[in-house]
Amino acid sequence: MPLKTRIENAIDAALLRARRGSAPTQLSNALFYAMKPGGARIRPTISLSVALACGDDAPDVSNAAATSIELIHCASLVHDDMPCFDDADTRRGKPTVHKEYGEALALLTGDSLIVQGFDTLAQVARKHPARAAELMSELANFTGMPNGICAGQGWESEEHIDLSAYHRAKTGALFTAATRMGAIAAGQEAEPWTELGARIGEAFQVADDLLDALYDADTIGKPAGQDALHNRPNAVSEYGVGGAVKRLEDILGGAISSIPSCPGEAMLAEMVRKTAERLTPVMPASTAAE
Amino acid sequence: MPLKTRIENAIDAALLRARRGSAPTQLSNALFYAMKPGGARIRPTISLSVALACGDDAPDVSNAAATSIELIHCASLVHDDMPCFDDADTRRGKPTVHKEYGEALALLTGDSLIVQGFDTLAQVARKHPARAAELMSELANFTGMPNGICAGQGWESEEHIDLSAYHRAKTGALFTAATRMGAIAAGQEAEPWTELGARIGEAFQVADDLLDALYDADTIGKPAGQDALHNRPNAVSEYGVGGAVKRLEDILGGAISSIPSCPGEAMLAEMVRKTAERLTPVMPASTAAE
Repeated sequence: MPLKTRIENAIDAALLRARRGSAPTQLSNALFYAMKPGGARIRPTISLSVALACGDDAPDVSNAAATSIELIHCASLVHDDMPCFDDADTRRGKPTVHKEYGEALALLTGDSLIVQGFDTLAQVARKHPARAAELMSELANFTGMPNGICAGQGWESEEHIDLSAYHRAKTGALFTAATRMGAIAAGQEAEPWTELGARIGEAFQVADDLLDALYDADTIGKPAGQDALHNRPNAVSEYGVGGAVKRLEDILGGAISSIPSCPGEAMLAEMVRKTAERLTPVMPASTAAE
Repeated sequence: MPLKTRIENAIDAALLRARRGSAPTQLSNALFYAMKPGGARIRPTISLSVALACGDDAPDVSNAAATSIELIHCASLVHDDMPCFDDADTRRGKPTVHKEYGEALALLTGDSLIVQGFDTLAQVARKHPARAAELMSELANFTGMPNGICAGQGWESEEHIDLSAYHRAKTGALFTAATRMGAIAAGQEAEPWTELGARIGEAFQVADDLLDALYDADTIGKPAGQDALHNRPNAVSEYGVGGAVKRLEDILGGAISSIPSCPGEAMLAEMVRKTAERLTPVMPASTAAE
């Protein structure tokens, strides 16, 4: 079964679970709207790829791990788009959840999706208590305070930003979670897989900075120029476009080097290289003078 | 050690954990502000009381269960107070989190506290994987969709409210979680403990309705008349004051009857009776004519 299908099936199952029985209809719909059709499902793809590279001896567990990360990720998008944060009207080319359903339901959607992330892991706990417990610990660490995406977002309310803590938490956290949890799900130690996730996260931060600085809203499906608008640090303003692209390539090279020995390491290196191609933006004509 | 002290120590430990290392300061402070000094800690008290009644053979686990419920409860208060919901300026006699720290940090505070709830359970998972896993499943069920407090709040955005689903989810959920999780933490079956929690939850709903209909903001520490303001169902408008009080007494009587045989059943019945006394409001002079 192709990875994409496997991921989508698992997400659909989690959504079905959240919307069963006597669930309030509007909130059910908002949950669905927030998750489907979804973006590139990058984080669950990375997580499952690591699990597969490690032998994937418990597919239910790796599916749960991958799904839980994507649920948390989508929850963070819903909350990040809200008026008190990015105040974004569109995401992935359609109205944001709060524009479509109102702020109250958007707030609840994010909350519900966070919980659904942990619920998804709880579902595999009966058969695999030790792995599920460790996965829940990881998910909590990379979502909450003090190291997770909530902390990352929290840095944006500080006067003095600890830049590396900010990036590690804001962008890196769920990628690091993805590789570590993929390993744990397949019965491996998490620690050797940390660097791969952290570096992929760094690469995405740089790529996101490039997107934000170079493209318009139609191309990227969400408002552009957010970093400048909200006065946030950006790799392009620091290194220039060329410098940022070079940095991205170096980071991804380091990512590949960090892959632990495992049956599927060649497959994983290939996945990272493909990710690198997707992330390196085609330079638009208007920036030729830079 | 008195129950109050045990609960407060466990909450303090969870807060310390959330604010360790390189945590962003403002969000750390907001988390503390949201949790301390706290209200009556009713839900963790109930949960620990059940665990004690069942022999409390794993105090770390029962502490974690009780704490996790209170973290979720406080998270729900932070989000419920926000402008898109109750738009409340005060809670427990002080400014709400969003008034004190702004909406962005309030949103993140709620998110972080939800995650901290699951993290607290994850902390005891290494030593007690099966109990921790079951506790996480319960917490997810009573917090998220379709049966938990998120669903409960979600009903307020529906045109047609399923009243019993609404109450069960909105108020009942965390009380039912409290009794069931207290039992699970002490190695017992959850099911026989469900009714006690559900009935206590019902009683609190009626008591809350009475408070909301009868008292002013200074007395109850939060805005009064919220139900009428937000056009929500209320037991007083349905049964009258006297009828609502009678209903409350009947519910609590049923709660006591439902207590399963256990070493500490007498202690528990006493706790429920004490709860009943605290919940039955003193009639203010102004309602004498009703």
